[in-house]
Amino acid sequence: MSTHPLDQALALAHSDLRTGLFTGAASADYWNMVGPFGGTTAAVMLQAVLEHPELLGAPVSLTVNFAAAMEAGPFELLAVPVRTNRSTQHWTVQMSQAGADGKPQVVTTATAVTALRRETWGASDLPMPQVPPPVDVERLDTGPAGVAWLKCYEMRLISGGVPTRWDGGGDHSETRMWLRDAPPRALDFASLAALSDCFFPRIWLRRAKPVPFGTVSITTYFHVDAAQLAEVGSGHLLGRATGQQFSNGYFDQAAQLWSQAGRLLATSNQIVYFKE
Amino acid sequence: MSTHPLDQALALAHSDLRTGLFTGAASADYWNMVGPFGGTTAAVMLQAVLEHPELLGAPVSLTVNFAAAMEAGPFELLAVPVRTNRSTQHWTVQMSQAGADGKPQVVTTATAVTALRRETWGASDLPMPQVPPPVDVERLDTGPAGVAWLKCYEMRLISGGVPTRWDGGGDHSETRMWLRDAPPRALDFASLAALSDCFFPRIWLRRAKPVPFGTVSITTYFHVDAAQLAEVGSGHLLGRATGQQFSNGYFDQAAQLWSQAGRLLATSNQIVYFKE
Repeated sequence: MSTHPLDQALALAHSDLRTGLFTGAASADYWNMVGPFGGTTAAVMLQAVLEHPELLGAPVSLTVNFAAAMEAGPFELLAVPVRTNRSTQHWTVQMSQAGADGKPQVVTTATAVTALRRETWGASDLPMPQVPPPVDVERLDTGPAGVAWLKCYEMRLISGGVPTRWDGGGDHSETRMWLRDAPPRALDFASLAALSDCFFPRIWLRRAKPVPFGTVSITTYFHVDAAQLAEVGSGHLLGRATGQQFSNGYFDQAAQLWSQAGRLLATSNQIVYFKE
Repeated sequence: MSTHPLDQALALAHSDLRTGLFTGAASADYWNMVGPFGGTTAAVMLQAVLEHPELLGAPVSLTVNFAAAMEAGPFELLAVPVRTNRSTQHWTVQMSQAGADGKPQVVTTATAVTALRRETWGASDLPMPQVPPPVDVERLDTGPAGVAWLKCYEMRLISGGVPTRWDGGGDHSETRMWLRDAPPRALDFASLAALSDCFFPRIWLRRAKPVPFGTVSITTYFHVDAAQLAEVGSGHLLGRATGQQFSNGYFDQAAQLWSQAGRLLATSNQIVYFKE
């Protein structure tokens, strides 16, 4: 088995393939402040779909809802292909952990669409921004003070970093950075799902105030197939994230991930709780 | 009971409130070419949540997956609050219709997050585009040739209309229009969910080619509470939609809806199948 921390985080045991029941455990490598990094949770929800014996095609869409704080320790995943058509398949996924009373409680829900894709006409209306190449951008230091999951990503910040002065003087919400798994790992759908959630909260940047926050729901659209992902290999992705609306305890974030060759691999949106 | 077609489309009978089971019927008023308008389907999925006796707060997020073509006639909805926290609640919703063999089959799935919202600091990083007011923009004629659902909306196209020449000469994918229910109806969460899906397919515009298409999944984030919706009343909304990536049979659309006063009410994304 691979020793890459992401592969370990995604490792599932198949307790009942007939019913789509899987078991796994929250990864300590990707621990965030009070629970695992949400991107890894999104990736593991997708992984259950990818390992399901009835899978048709590859992911087109994934929505993950973070229903409750995930604890350290084991979890159970139930992945169900609720509808299989000729070229598309619709999935529901639920992750449960034992509650205080020992009974399983839902901590994460997801839906996914997978599809057999055919080559068609294509175009991009979101060209990659002009930015310096990764080699010319300094890698962020995730040093000893950083939370664990940050060590699992190589981030090279181009613009819009975490404020160095929390003075309430923020005036925009856009971050641009090169990023990839650390150590480098060939891109696949699960890692792309996780990378879509790699941005620090837009409100920290917009408001220059480090308020508590938590992603409530994230939706990622995949614009590539497995062969196109293979072309990216372990190269850097350009990530761009912007806030759109900040209002009454929630803001949304739109994010895009391009390959270094300029191909838009994924577009992702999330809605995030914040506390004043 | 209201005689507005949307209220009729959203009318649900509560067959078992304890289990969250509802029944309804596909609306003929909102019929599209081969099934009901997807926006109405999204709205009815949300309506089951809104009418559930255990509802906490108001919608923050809604994802609807169109798993199979909906038929005319009755449907059953199962809305389940899978997790209720102090200020947020997570929902799964499934819509079923009788299949060819008479057995219920899943045709639509959804997840939603509802929340009690508090007043906080806020900001918008997506200001409303400068456009002429609704009174200065001609209403689209949905005439006798139009499909039924178009008659249920007042659309005033500002830019980016359905091509008049299908010559493959498209070069952008942005539409701007004023829109509201027809006849006018006070805005609520269900109608806002439906309005988020009111744009014709981006690929028709981008490619100037009328290819077959179908939305696979739509996610809408609500940036307002009920009181803020009430302020909008039956006024026009400015809608803007753009395609982002068109590739191998799917494209995504990002959409925004502002009140005429310039408040961003909802941001919505969808992924759409197209056939070459």
